[in-house]
Amino acid sequence: MLTLDKVYHAAYILRECARKTDLIAAPLLSEEHNLYLKTENLQVTGSFKLRGAYYKISQLSEDEKSRGIVACSAGNHAQGVAMAASRKGIPATICMPDSAPVMKVESTRRLGANVELVKGAYDDAHDRAVQLVDETGATFIHPYDDDCVIAGQATIGLEILDQLEDVEAIVVPIGGGGLISGISFAVKSLKPDVKIYGVQAAGAASMYNSFRAKERRVLDSVSTFADGIAVKNPGENTYEIISRYVDDIVCVSEDEIAAAILALIERQKLIAEGAGAVPVAAAMFHKLPIEGRKTVCIVSGGNIDVNILSRVITRGLIMTGRNINLTIELVDKPGQLQQVSEIVASCGANVVAVSYDHGDTNMAINSCFLKIALETLNSSQIDVIRQKLTEAGFRIVTERV
Amino acid sequence: MLTLDKVYHAAYILRECARKTDLIAAPLLSEEHNLYLKTENLQVTGSFKLRGAYYKISQLSEDEKSRGIVACSAGNHAQGVAMAASRKGIPATICMPDSAPVMKVESTRRLGANVELVKGAYDDAHDRAVQLVDETGATFIHPYDDDCVIAGQATIGLEILDQLEDVEAIVVPIGGGGLISGISFAVKSLKPDVKIYGVQAAGAASMYNSFRAKERRVLDSVSTFADGIAVKNPGENTYEIISRYVDDIVCVSEDEIAAAILALIERQKLIAEGAGAVPVAAAMFHKLPIEGRKTVCIVSGGNIDVNILSRVITRGLIMTGRNINLTIELVDKPGQLQQVSEIVASCGANVVAVSYDHGDTNMAINSCFLKIALETLNSSQIDVIRQKLTEAGFRIVTERV
Repeated sequence: MLTLDKVYHAAYILRECARKTDLIAAPLLSEEHNLYLKTENLQVTGSFKLRGAYYKISQLSEDEKSRGIVACSAGNHAQGVAMAASRKGIPATICMPDSAPVMKVESTRRLGANVELVKGAYDDAHDRAVQLVDETGATFIHPYDDDCVIAGQATIGLEILDQLEDVEAIVVPIGGGGLISGISFAVKSLKPDVKIYGVQAAGAASMYNSFRAKERRVLDSVSTFADGIAVKNPGENTYEIISRYVDDIVCVSEDEIAAAILALIERQKLIAEGAGAVPVAAAMFHKLPIEGRKTVCIVSGGNIDVNILSRVITRGLIMTGRNINLTIELVDKPGQLQQVSEIVASCGANVVAVSYDHGDTNMAINSCFLKIALETLNSSQIDVIRQKLTEAGFRIVTERV
Repeated sequence: MLTLDKVYHAAYILRECARKTDLIAAPLLSEEHNLYLKTENLQVTGSFKLRGAYYKISQLSEDEKSRGIVACSAGNHAQGVAMAASRKGIPATICMPDSAPVMKVESTRRLGANVELVKGAYDDAHDRAVQLVDETGATFIHPYDDDCVIAGQATIGLEILDQLEDVEAIVVPIGGGGLISGISFAVKSLKPDVKIYGVQAAGAASMYNSFRAKERRVLDSVSTFADGIAVKNPGENTYEIISRYVDDIVCVSEDEIAAAILALIERQKLIAEGAGAVPVAAAMFHKLPIEGRKTVCIVSGGNIDVNILSRVITRGLIMTGRNINLTIELVDKPGQLQQVSEIVASCGANVVAVSYDHGDTNMAINSCFLKIALETLNSSQIDVIRQKLTEAGFRIVTERV
């Protein structure tokens, strides 16, 4: 059973291994809010998952320890379990889907676990883990639906109450629900007037649906780049705790998550993964009644694949008017590129890529398409460029925004 | 005169405004080292500069305060002065070159300063600031060559000695030299056996040259994307302090800085600007005798333009085998693109851009060039793709690495 006792005990045990992560005021993220960030992305292994995994593993009996542990994860839980097990000297096998990012597989191995790559998706890796437990008698470490795991995550709640005494609201990502179960239990037990809000990706709204329907609902499929919270099955224990302690759950879109990641980079110098950015996204896009209230957003993790990050930044730059791709119809005669370049340069924008296309069937035979990618300052600079090009007689065919 | 007294006084005063930034162990940055990061990128205003500016401004006389202050900066110092002045209710004018990133200009304004954009580069802005001081009797706040400013930065040294008692070495970026002057003075005064190393960008090695020549040397020009340390004029006071207290100064290349920024993103979830990443670059690329020693790298700031950041990430991805652009010669007949796509997919790589080029004068008339951009896992995956394409009879014309 989850008790405050267990949470305090977890906090004591975690001094061996986890960091008390910094709480940072974030006035630049939003002028209307009073936001603070709990930086679990700066936790050892890059996410909060170490807390629950370490506490759970520390509580195993000697007999259980000797039989080893098995877990299944595509990412953060894998790294948490791997580190906890190797610190405790316990052999660990982590089943990971072979689609998991190579970085996370390598990190998990580097942390000392035996990784078994399973063909397929998360569910296939899970089946293999269950099979291993049956065969070897090892202990399965569940990523969220376990009292000790939840007690470990709950220590974040204790730290927040210590770091910001007059906190009024806490906003927490939800995947399976372990993190918010722990935080809401600890905080509501000690200071019931603090509001606790959960956030899910709209493409993986399993707990959101369950909360609204007042019964546990499982999704057939999920679709979000926030892989840390792409969960079809809300936990059973976590659903019960959330029903009791959480004030509301909201959803954010993929573009909102991307904008939050970019804002965290630019204004707070922090890398968040998609799952870690959903609370900030919910605040920035006004999904929650937290205006003027001292609000802590949990930045739960920072393990984002750099190729994805690069795309998120590119998308964010286009959305905020700092990049634009224009396709311009040119009459096929000398001097046209020069004229376009002059206009762009006179507006202070920077050309980063240019290509010509003569072969499009939609264009007049004596014309061609110039594709030009620009670094710009903001959308008003783009307006000026667009206007000057039009005035000079150029036709802008498409604009990718 | 710089005294320990002044440093402790600065530490007391800075409790009003600056954060005691976290010191974070960074075992994943390098296996041979024992690295810790002092996260001044998470300082208020995104860099350490607030410390010196705030302490300096707090020490002005009432008469000086009433006449206001003037500063000149393209970036971090501007934001530090702006925030310090507005917290103290003092009117501030910051001269910034009109080439300064719009983000930094806007941040400085948002922090409450009057920004005067000066046509030209840093030197022109500096001339205008001096003129303003002459005209108005305002006080000029020097970015580094000032005892109070240096005492403010020195508080970082006190914090490190508190946060990591048995520190053995500290690695510090050098532009004008204010940061390392403060840290080396404080640390060597209290614990003389700690090694202090400075790092400069090879394209702006003014203090490096001076240190080697044993006399102050000024550069005619500087060239580095680490704009925070692109300084031609080493400070006079700072040069004297550095000569006395700093153990050595080394340089790092632009590519090394980019690799350090990417490593900080991937492994530590932190955004550093170029200047803020040079200590990590020096450690990663073995420029310093710090193996096995408890070493603190100062991540001095995180104010990097996102367009630059996006390019740094792209470059880093290419350097580490996670992105590649191939140009492949195809015979101009149906099915060729399909065959290439099949090979790429069978290796597990992801196509992100494709273009055809029929018009190159270097190619046979019945052939064309396929340009293809791939997201890859690592350089051995690239080797496999290259080999399979070659075996299938395709000629790889160029490869941008």
